Amino acid sequence: MWIALDKNSGISLKRQLHSHIKEMILGGNISSGERLPSSRTLSKQLCVSRNTVLEVYEQLAAEGFLEGERGSGTVVATGISQQKRTVYKRDRTALSAPFDTKEETIDFRSGVPDPSLFPRKEWGKLYSRVCAALPPSAFRYSNFAGVWELRESISRYLFRTRGIECPPKNVMIISGATQGLALIARILSDGKNKAIVEDPIHPSILNLFSSEGYSVSGIEADDKGINTSLLPADSDVSFIYTTPSHQYPLGSILPIQRRQSLVRYASDNDCYVVESDYGNGSTFRFEGPPISSLHELNPDRVIYVSSFSKILTPALRLGFMLLPDKLVPGYKAYKMNADLHSESLSQYVMAEFINSGRLEKHTSKINKIYNQKRKQLIAELNAKFPGEFHIKGQTAGLHVLASFFETTFTEDLIRRISSCGATVYPVEDFSFQNRGRHRNEIIMGYAHLHSSEITQGVEILERVIHSRALDPRSDFA
Amino acid sequence: MWIALDKNSGISLKRQLHSHIKEMILGGNISSGERLPSSRTLSKQLCVSRNTVLEVYEQLAAEGFLEGERGSGTVVATGISQQKRTVYKRDRTALSAPFDTKEETIDFRSGVPDPSLFPRKEWGKLYSRVCAALPPSAFRYSNFAGVWELRESISRYLFRTRGIECPPKNVMIISGATQGLALIARILSDGKNKAIVEDPIHPSILNLFSSEGYSVSGIEADDKGINTSLLPADSDVSFIYTTPSHQYPLGSILPIQRRQSLVRYASDNDCYVVESDYGNGSTFRFEGPPISSLHELNPDRVIYVSSFSKILTPALRLGFMLLPDKLVPGYKAYKMNADLHSESLSQYVMAEFINSGRLEKHTSKINKIYNQKRKQLIAELNAKFPGEFHIKGQTAGLHVLASFFETTFTEDLIRRISSCGATVYPVEDFSFQNRGRHRNEIIMGYAHLHSSEITQGVEILERVIHSRALDPRSDFA
Repeated sequence: MWIALDKNSGISLKRQLHSHIKEMILGGNISSGERLPSSRTLSKQLCVSRNTVLEVYEQLAAEGFLEGERGSGTVVATGISQQKRTVYKRDRTALSAPFDTKEETIDFRSGVPDPSLFPRKEWGKLYSRVCAALPPSAFRYSNFAGVWELRESISRYLFRTRGIECPPKNVMIISGATQGLALIARILSDGKNKAIVEDPIHPSILNLFSSEGYSVSGIEADDKGINTSLLPADSDVSFIYTTPSHQYPLGSILPIQRRQSLVRYASDNDCYVVESDYGNGSTFRFEGPPISSLHELNPDRVIYVSSFSKILTPALRLGFMLLPDKLVPGYKAYKMNADLHSESLSQYVMAEFINSGRLEKHTSKINKIYNQKRKQLIAELNAKFPGEFHIKGQTAGLHVLASFFETTFTEDLIRRISSCGATVYPVEDFSFQNRGRHRNEIIMGYAHLHSSEITQGVEILERVIHSRALDPRSDFA
Repeated sequence: MWIALDKNSGISLKRQLHSHIKEMILGGNISSGERLPSSRTLSKQLCVSRNTVLEVYEQLAAEGFLEGERGSGTVVATGISQQKRTVYKRDRTALSAPFDTKEETIDFRSGVPDPSLFPRKEWGKLYSRVCAALPPSAFRYSNFAGVWELRESISRYLFRTRGIECPPKNVMIISGATQGLALIARILSDGKNKAIVEDPIHPSILNLFSSEGYSVSGIEADDKGINTSLLPADSDVSFIYTTPSHQYPLGSILPIQRRQSLVRYASDNDCYVVESDYGNGSTFRFEGPPISSLHELNPDRVIYVSSFSKILTPALRLGFMLLPDKLVPGYKAYKMNADLHSESLSQYVMAEFINSGRLEKHTSKINKIYNQKRKQLIAELNAKFPGEFHIKGQTAGLHVLASFFETTFTEDLIRRISSCGATVYPVEDFSFQNRGRHRNEIIMGYAHLHSSEITQGVEILERVIHSRALDPRSDFA
């Protein structure tokens, strides 16, 4: 209990203590029934004689503020009218989270996993079991690169599911993919300050790299992903950021020819390729065989970044990257200054979650569920917009791209759709330097939506888009 | 299971699949008894007809590689001599952790909490209970500032234990104090690039600030903490880093006069004071009343940074800072790029741990234990070195500072002590710009040491130091 006594003030310690406790009771800082510290504890804590405390307690008891006998513990009496303890209202910023969806509309935001699919009970039980079994050393500062057991199980997991061969010593545990990219940007910054990204790209990635001081340029991505024939020979390029197994947002899969020229480019220009893959190539792969990694083509030039955010939950802030030996010292230096190491107890739990086969069981389960939602969305789009659009990038990821033949998604149209209760995202909003190529395209994330919401959302889309045919302000007029 | 089939190669898919699985078995990637995916699953995954898979399974069964009937599941047969699965040895970096202690000696490193004191069972049970009870939304991306419930309970906790009044909206949850300092450095960097620190100071803090591009200057700290009379009037100063409740490493407590001039300086020079406090002023306070915070003198100019690393465990990477409204937008921007938000499940658990009174019960428990170790260390030093030293900063913290009258801790002496099995840390190693003031002083951390280790460690110290009296190379000669 916090009580500041002033030994130099004229007022006796007894009087001071008495009025302090009285104020705290009346002010509602200690409520009725709440136990006060024992006279021994309080006297030690405040460095006053135990008798002083005892006398004050007795006086307050006599005045009806306190109840209870010596020894048996002293509590605040009931029936005292106390001021309400200040209750703080949640401020708005407390509610806004990154990539949050709008509650009031059917929000087709992409890349939002269904939080109800996280195996909370299984995870919690496992956590408690692992926590009880860990050696004391596990509760000290951990290694900057992460818990060895997890690095080992990720190494095996990637081999089993992707055929990626990467020793644990090159597996770095990060607090989510975002931190991974921030660290990469810093590690690779010395001397070189140019970064190349795919265009279109998620604005948050652009923001991240430029805030790290890079001059970022975009290379057009088409239905086959980043167009490597447009890569400039430039020795100032530090790295190329790419999403080869499912270009975000287009959903294209990078063919082997372009993959090979990417890694060749990296060697020729002494730079790196940053391969970002939130689904580990297979989890969110719905048609065709799993996609192999860019990393396997040249582990010395490709940095593979992934996380458990989409396949389990973003709440854990747990991810990993595969780093060439050469970059490990730089990683250590920057990771140390960033947060020393990532939260380590969940790392032990995750290792067990993977080694016990739970992760693969879970991913194949959610793959089925997301695939159903995906099929439903495509079916309903086909029903409502026959022959008016075609779907791109639907074989993987957590969203589909609907490319309409004659509908332009102007700000006005998006606003009308949202005012009718659905939120869709124009691909044009992800355009960086090559603007104007994606005015007829929207991405629709479905992972977090219920079947009924998908139906309703598509209906709203249909109503608004088709109403425009009769609308003089429409592009058809 | 990762199998890459090449539909364009001359070889039939059946032949390819057959040899792939055979290689994986012989290579030890699937060991005897391990179950293969069902023919249905595998055929879907590889996009080959189910018959192809079935025929391959049958052939491999005929060849003795596989066992089991259709439907009942196919497993790898026993008695096949397989290559050992590559087992990776833990590399050395996997063992080195920040602030780690040397196993082979009695290491008096300071600030290392006793990991065996973490209430692992209680925490694990609570985690599993909280995890099961959370709403689905808790498993989505969380707020950049942290989980509201935790920010609220920290606000109350600080009021109860420190008298600090800070609304939850100003409590920012960080991934440990280090991340907090890194974020502060970035938030405050715009325009101003000078940082002032106490001297002596922990080198890792210096490194952190200079790596963020600050020109760092030190102000001498004495037995009363940072000497504020030496503060330069300088409008380029961005912030002053200080540890007022227990100067690290000297252990001094900053008196009210200097506290007031610190915050006055901050207002006059339009900069901030960063108050770092790993024990929240009371947990590691062993004598005298708890120390009030610098923050309470001017919440608009003082950024209070603390963490649960020392009072619970560093493994959780959970800390908090109290931020003036003015700096919250900057915090948001940099936190987003750093890791979006800190791991949120433990945040809900921590909120419950605090609200249920468990944290205060825990801190008073460890306070008693650490106090015993502290008393033992001081007693044994007094027994072995009567009248040869005096103790500083023993009233708080997790280490004492032993200031010897006639012993200089040269590199040579430190080496001899460590070669005899004990590691002590010269305060001089923490000197930044004012070198030479602390040659006779060592800091001795005791928190993580067993009673027997403390005894043994002091004995070693005594043996080596006193042997030097007879040693021609000693400073006495």
